[in-house]
Amino acid sequence: MFSFRWRIFYAELLVHVYTDTGVRRETGNAAMDKSFFMTLFEPRAIAFIGASTNPAKWGFNIMHHIVRAGYAGGIYPVNPQGGTWFGMDMYKSLSGVPKPVDLAVIVLPKELVSGALRECAGAGIRSAVIITAGFSETGADGAALEKELIASAREVGVRIVGPNTMGVFSAYPSPLQAVMASSEFAPGPVAVVSQSGNLGTSISYRFLRRGIGISRLVSSGNEADLTVEDYLEYLETDDRTRVICLYIEGVRQGRRFMETARRISASKPVILLKGGTGKTGAGAAMSHTGAMAGSFSVFRSMCAQANIILADSIDEMVDIAGLYLSQPEMAGNSVGIVTQGGGWGVISADLCEAAGLDVPPLKSRAVEILDSFLPPFWSRRNPVDLVAPGRVSMITDSIAALMEHADMDAILLLGLGYMTVRARRWLNSPVIPGGALEGPARRMIDGEMELLDLVVRQIKEFGKPIIPVIDLVGFDDPGEGNIVAHLDRLGIMAYSSPEQAITALAKIREYYRKRRVRIKE
Amino acid sequence: MFSFRWRIFYAELLVHVYTDTGVRRETGNAAMDKSFFMTLFEPRAIAFIGASTNPAKWGFNIMHHIVRAGYAGGIYPVNPQGGTWFGMDMYKSLSGVPKPVDLAVIVLPKELVSGALRECAGAGIRSAVIITAGFSETGADGAALEKELIASAREVGVRIVGPNTMGVFSAYPSPLQAVMASSEFAPGPVAVVSQSGNLGTSISYRFLRRGIGISRLVSSGNEADLTVEDYLEYLETDDRTRVICLYIEGVRQGRRFMETARRISASKPVILLKGGTGKTGAGAAMSHTGAMAGSFSVFRSMCAQANIILADSIDEMVDIAGLYLSQPEMAGNSVGIVTQGGGWGVISADLCEAAGLDVPPLKSRAVEILDSFLPPFWSRRNPVDLVAPGRVSMITDSIAALMEHADMDAILLLGLGYMTVRARRWLNSPVIPGGALEGPARRMIDGEMELLDLVVRQIKEFGKPIIPVIDLVGFDDPGEGNIVAHLDRLGIMAYSSPEQAITALAKIREYYRKRRVRIKE
Repeated sequence: MFSFRWRIFYAELLVHVYTDTGVRRETGNAAMDKSFFMTLFEPRAIAFIGASTNPAKWGFNIMHHIVRAGYAGGIYPVNPQGGTWFGMDMYKSLSGVPKPVDLAVIVLPKELVSGALRECAGAGIRSAVIITAGFSETGADGAALEKELIASAREVGVRIVGPNTMGVFSAYPSPLQAVMASSEFAPGPVAVVSQSGNLGTSISYRFLRRGIGISRLVSSGNEADLTVEDYLEYLETDDRTRVICLYIEGVRQGRRFMETARRISASKPVILLKGGTGKTGAGAAMSHTGAMAGSFSVFRSMCAQANIILADSIDEMVDIAGLYLSQPEMAGNSVGIVTQGGGWGVISADLCEAAGLDVPPLKSRAVEILDSFLPPFWSRRNPVDLVAPGRVSMITDSIAALMEHADMDAILLLGLGYMTVRARRWLNSPVIPGGALEGPARRMIDGEMELLDLVVRQIKEFGKPIIPVIDLVGFDDPGEGNIVAHLDRLGIMAYSSPEQAITALAKIREYYRKRRVRIKE
Repeated sequence: MFSFRWRIFYAELLVHVYTDTGVRRETGNAAMDKSFFMTLFEPRAIAFIGASTNPAKWGFNIMHHIVRAGYAGGIYPVNPQGGTWFGMDMYKSLSGVPKPVDLAVIVLPKELVSGALRECAGAGIRSAVIITAGFSETGADGAALEKELIASAREVGVRIVGPNTMGVFSAYPSPLQAVMASSEFAPGPVAVVSQSGNLGTSISYRFLRRGIGISRLVSSGNEADLTVEDYLEYLETDDRTRVICLYIEGVRQGRRFMETARRISASKPVILLKGGTGKTGAGAAMSHTGAMAGSFSVFRSMCAQANIILADSIDEMVDIAGLYLSQPEMAGNSVGIVTQGGGWGVISADLCEAAGLDVPPLKSRAVEILDSFLPPFWSRRNPVDLVAPGRVSMITDSIAALMEHADMDAILLLGLGYMTVRARRWLNSPVIPGGALEGPARRMIDGEMELLDLVVRQIKEFGKPIIPVIDLVGFDDPGEGNIVAHLDRLGIMAYSSPEQAITALAKIREYYRKRRVRIKE
């Protein structure tokens, strides 16, 4: 049940924030038939309407992305002039295309789109991604054209992504990269819905570079038919999606959006970056997507109640999602810090405190145990400064002591990577004659790799997060002993700085805390 | 002249914050002879006391770093057993070492260090970097040993870095890498003084990976003799140093520190990251370097008055320094945003507003000019959303219009890199037969490279910052068309996100503003 405060916020939201802008929208009611989503995200075959062999055109590039990425269903390029698309026959019209076709990707001049939708319906197509721009985002004439487009779509029963969308990527059952973005995509558990095509691209790109794949990406464009609320409802039931990332400038149906997000957040996190939080940004958003950005403080409170995680940047979005996907739940507020350098420990303790996490003192039993194997001048407090640990086991034993005897809910492991950097310096040294240090160097690299393996085992054993922070993230050499890549393979996200790790940890902790409270309610 | 408020802050600082901790320090008075700094940072030859061929020891690794990095002065390894160090003769004692030698790097067991200092003096050595740990950082016994060490040093007139230091790197006249850190160093304009060895290493590492070299790096260790105040006074006069980065847990002579920083900041920025800003962190700092961290709010106010730039992370430190080094002064508060994607423009406007920068509306003359060459549906406001610019000149002409007719003090250029990413996708496509797109791909890469060249020319022409934001920073392919590397070569720092660029811009703008006010005073 919604609390009283919850209802008040809805009222505020509806009055102040999410007034409709422009065309009246009829979609999104509870009775909406959702089966068509399968034709959008898992089509058996697609028609590409407006295919082109001119590399300066989207009709070439998006087609190229789809073919290159290896979509396994039928791909039918349509162009009234016929001919071939780099070895594939082009169809002069939809009527010649083999059946069944579920989805149309449309890259036609704007005046031709309405007509094409009617042909789509005739060919049994139920969904269309309309890349074409020049509609309501361009003023009154475009708005009229968009109105006509929607009328056609409603009449013939075709659902629309866009218009003015960057496109859709869907990883399952086979990769369908129907997007403008040329970067490579990999399949994975994160869905991205973005009211900005370029931010959707940038978000996906950052996930991929950090070793996390994308399940579905939607650039929602003008949201003339399908809106972010619709996509959210679909993702709620999408088994391929474990985390949902949203870039939002404004939502049209605030209540529906927040209710759906609140429901979803009980099982998967919804991470949201809000555009248009300032005055100029809100103005730019109005011009960009026609969204009324509304009061950010009201929106922020709504998100807190729906247990939506608000990210402050797209990098933070990746940091948070990666932590959720690669680590167990953080069940309390206590952080143990294990560091191979004093300064890292100091700034990490500062950051935890500022983020509302505790760095509790060590119980005497834990100190006793650590005393038994750490160098004599270790810090004797949390952060545990290992000084220079002589053996890998000193690190894992310290982690175990903190978990078993100091009741930590998570551990930050700082200073990884230095052994590998040293070993590389040995391996290619012109100073040391012919491989004299090859043996010790490889043992050192192996030692750091083994440490990572052991840490991943400890994550499972204790069922608590142990988060590696490594200077080399984003900058590691591709060659031998790439420990960041090794952690990727092990399925653990590494962070390049304590700032990133601690911000993500604090937000995920808060998410879990509220999720627990909700479950108990 | 110091204002009244300034004096009050000093009083507070002296009472509340910077009480001496432990050993009484006599150094740092104005009469200090500073000529020895040349022997520390530009020695003619060095003695490495405690050289070892065992790769598990610092006596090997630091020696290895010095030899490998190519220090051009004499290097004399000293080991009582004699023998050779990978082809170099080891000296059994300092007495046999050729003269002159200016600097000793000492890696001996702690009990032997005092004796070694006396020998150093006998050999005419005036400075010593004492890597050896186990002194005041370890408790009462170690503090007594450190007292003895300092007494010896004073008696014989040798100045000391450390003990318990990670070491010193000095780029000029030839690279002297007398540090534990194995990462490579490159010469450049940034000096780093750190009260944490590992943070000093991490800071330097990040500068190098972003294409900026280091002039001097000092890990100040226990500061038994030379303190951060001393290094700061040296760097003030060091022509090789254009930016000073500090990691500080506590300073002993608050007034001297702040006065020096205030004086320096009139000609070079001092960027400071403070450790021990929270309760736990302050405790950890006490245990780490013995520093009393003091009240951060008082410290922050002191820094504001001294025009020290406070960084919130070491990444931010690099962002700020890079902007200062690669761009002209930002003389006012107005930011023009030129973007190839609406979403980037929206969040950038939000970020500017939050950071206290203005994103002013466009004057009608600027709109007229932009109308004459931009696609019909460009945003008609600041942020200038170029939609899809067909030609490179649309971007540079937009920049010129904002500079000449809209009085912008800086421009953020968002969305670079997408042409290059597309071109790469064409170049290695298995779908397109035999190099059919090679010509257009290369033209696209050349186009983006040319754009960067033109932008760098515009920075000079207008004498105002134009800051490129590129998704690919930190993740670019090393191969063809690496635009981030191209910007590095052109001497311009690129940012991977608007957050980073705008935070740095706001802090640098504030620095310049205060510097101007001070000059007028």
